[in-house]
Amino acid sequence: MSFPTPEISVRLPAGAAPVACVDIGGTKVAVSVADEHGVRGKVSEPTAKEGGRDALAAQIIRLVGQSAAAAGVPVERISAVGVASCGPFVLHQGLVELAAPNICGGMAGKERGLPNDWPTAWLEAPLRAAFPKVRVENDGVGALEAERRWGALQGVDHCAYVTWSTGIGMGLCVDGRILRGKNGNAGHAGHTFVADLDDTLCGCGLRGDVEALIAGNAIPRRFGSQGYTDAATLFVAVRAGEAGATAILDGLCTVMGRTLFNMIATLDLQRIALGGSVFWHNQDLILPRLRAFLQGKFAALTDGVELVPAGLGERVGDFSALALVMD
Amino acid sequence: MSFPTPEISVRLPAGAAPVACVDIGGTKVAVSVADEHGVRGKVSEPTAKEGGRDALAAQIIRLVGQSAAAAGVPVERISAVGVASCGPFVLHQGLVELAAPNICGGMAGKERGLPNDWPTAWLEAPLRAAFPKVRVENDGVGALEAERRWGALQGVDHCAYVTWSTGIGMGLCVDGRILRGKNGNAGHAGHTFVADLDDTLCGCGLRGDVEALIAGNAIPRRFGSQGYTDAATLFVAVRAGEAGATAILDGLCTVMGRTLFNMIATLDLQRIALGGSVFWHNQDLILPRLRAFLQGKFAALTDGVELVPAGLGERVGDFSALALVMD
Repeated sequence: MSFPTPEISVRLPAGAAPVACVDIGGTKVAVSVADEHGVRGKVSEPTAKEGGRDALAAQIIRLVGQSAAAAGVPVERISAVGVASCGPFVLHQGLVELAAPNICGGMAGKERGLPNDWPTAWLEAPLRAAFPKVRVENDGVGALEAERRWGALQGVDHCAYVTWSTGIGMGLCVDGRILRGKNGNAGHAGHTFVADLDDTLCGCGLRGDVEALIAGNAIPRRFGSQGYTDAATLFVAVRAGEAGATAILDGLCTVMGRTLFNMIATLDLQRIALGGSVFWHNQDLILPRLRAFLQGKFAALTDGVELVPAGLGERVGDFSALALVMD
Repeated sequence: MSFPTPEISVRLPAGAAPVACVDIGGTKVAVSVADEHGVRGKVSEPTAKEGGRDALAAQIIRLVGQSAAAAGVPVERISAVGVASCGPFVLHQGLVELAAPNICGGMAGKERGLPNDWPTAWLEAPLRAAFPKVRVENDGVGALEAERRWGALQGVDHCAYVTWSTGIGMGLCVDGRILRGKNGNAGHAGHTFVADLDDTLCGCGLRGDVEALIAGNAIPRRFGSQGYTDAATLFVAVRAGEAGATAILDGLCTVMGRTLFNMIATLDLQRIALGGSVFWHNQDLILPRLRAFLQGKFAALTDGVELVPAGLGERVGDFSALALVMD
């Protein structure tokens, strides 16, 4: 199914210096440039996972140059770089390094087959050496800021953005304030435990957490032997009416439903916006299952809570980074 | 084992009008009076669960009178009533009613054996008719405010207070701000799903949530047939070296460990203080198990996180309500 993202046009104020917007995911890195003419010059590559611990930062610096060239903006004019990245973060001398399980092979050992043994990937330090201003935030925080500014969470004080993609990420807002936590890692509820379904290893080293059970990268690990080698294959089979695939989807949605319920019970939320590639292309199949899961569960907590698709659709990533440098 | 609460003396400023402090739990209601001479006149009774929906509020009004008399304070001089109550809350015409599963028999039907069919218990409206100023908060919020003011969470910006008692309750603080949510119900993580251990019914109507699995009132329901008719009996058996009881305790601590890990991953916390009767009297057995559970789990999130006993010990409830009216 095709779920188009609404036309959204965001520009910097006239005369503002251009900024670069970097979206780091477990699968790909995307960079755009934004200025008074809008967001443009988007370039992307598979996330660098080979070489030294500075490989990812070097890739970003190179892509900023390419994006600026594509946008016709001299790279020297880039005044700030906003980075919305998968996490979690660790701070080294006050600067963010990534300890992301889908990128750093040093976290869950060799079982995940990542071609590096990085305990963390360097990020903020090399970017600060290359650009005048850098702001790095968890991608869940960036997406939440973007959805609150331009998307489906405008005017909602108790809300979450949830991405269901290669991994599972969140940004959380309670009482009108975005949650950050001691290292900026609030929202890592993709690594919570909600079930005993199996002992599948997550990239973070945990077994059986939400991301290990239902993220895009979990589908081939858990169901590849049944022929479902990726999320797209699984959903094609569901749409073709295969009972086995439908049962798998029901199970995945039960885990996500529990995860969303847990956020509502923990934070007393009003609205949750969902995005990410697994969700976005299959929202017609996923949303009814999630809503059915919540229906009637501890009504004092769930009555009136809304589950909605992200207002920025598949472009959340671009706007996340932009929201960070517009603040 | 005996774990004494440190001597803590809290007084209102000289000349301040006296206030009443009300602690509503699933098992008992306790009321004290505080003034420039300290907190005193404590009276308590089993929580009213029979009669009309105003029975609990009527009990509180009567106990405030008894506490004032015991303290030698004319009840007319009570200037404010702070109420720290188990939840969750629902708002009716802007005023708090309780939808607490351990009190309201109308929530999980007759299976729990509660002697009423209340969908909610009236609370704030009748209290406001009786006293000049009333502040009702979730007991987790009250306890957290008290622990941050006088207890084990002073100066910690990312923290939680967790009570393991008749039920499981929490107060949550991120970025230096206590979380409240749309109806003041943030912190109801006692009703989250963290395991598939069984389908035990919780008073809230859910099956298999944390409270259904490990709260004080879950022990007779789950393990009564093995002779463990309450938490005290279970822990006596653990101390006597009974292998079956020890295995049950390990299982309970795995569920609580998962719950605490989930809070850390969701909120990026620094420190968690624990209280409540089940925890307090058995902290020597429980704390090492919880710390072992967290040890090494997704180190970027858990490294350096502290689990500590509540600084206010068994008096958290008294000070919770006081913290609410001192604000």
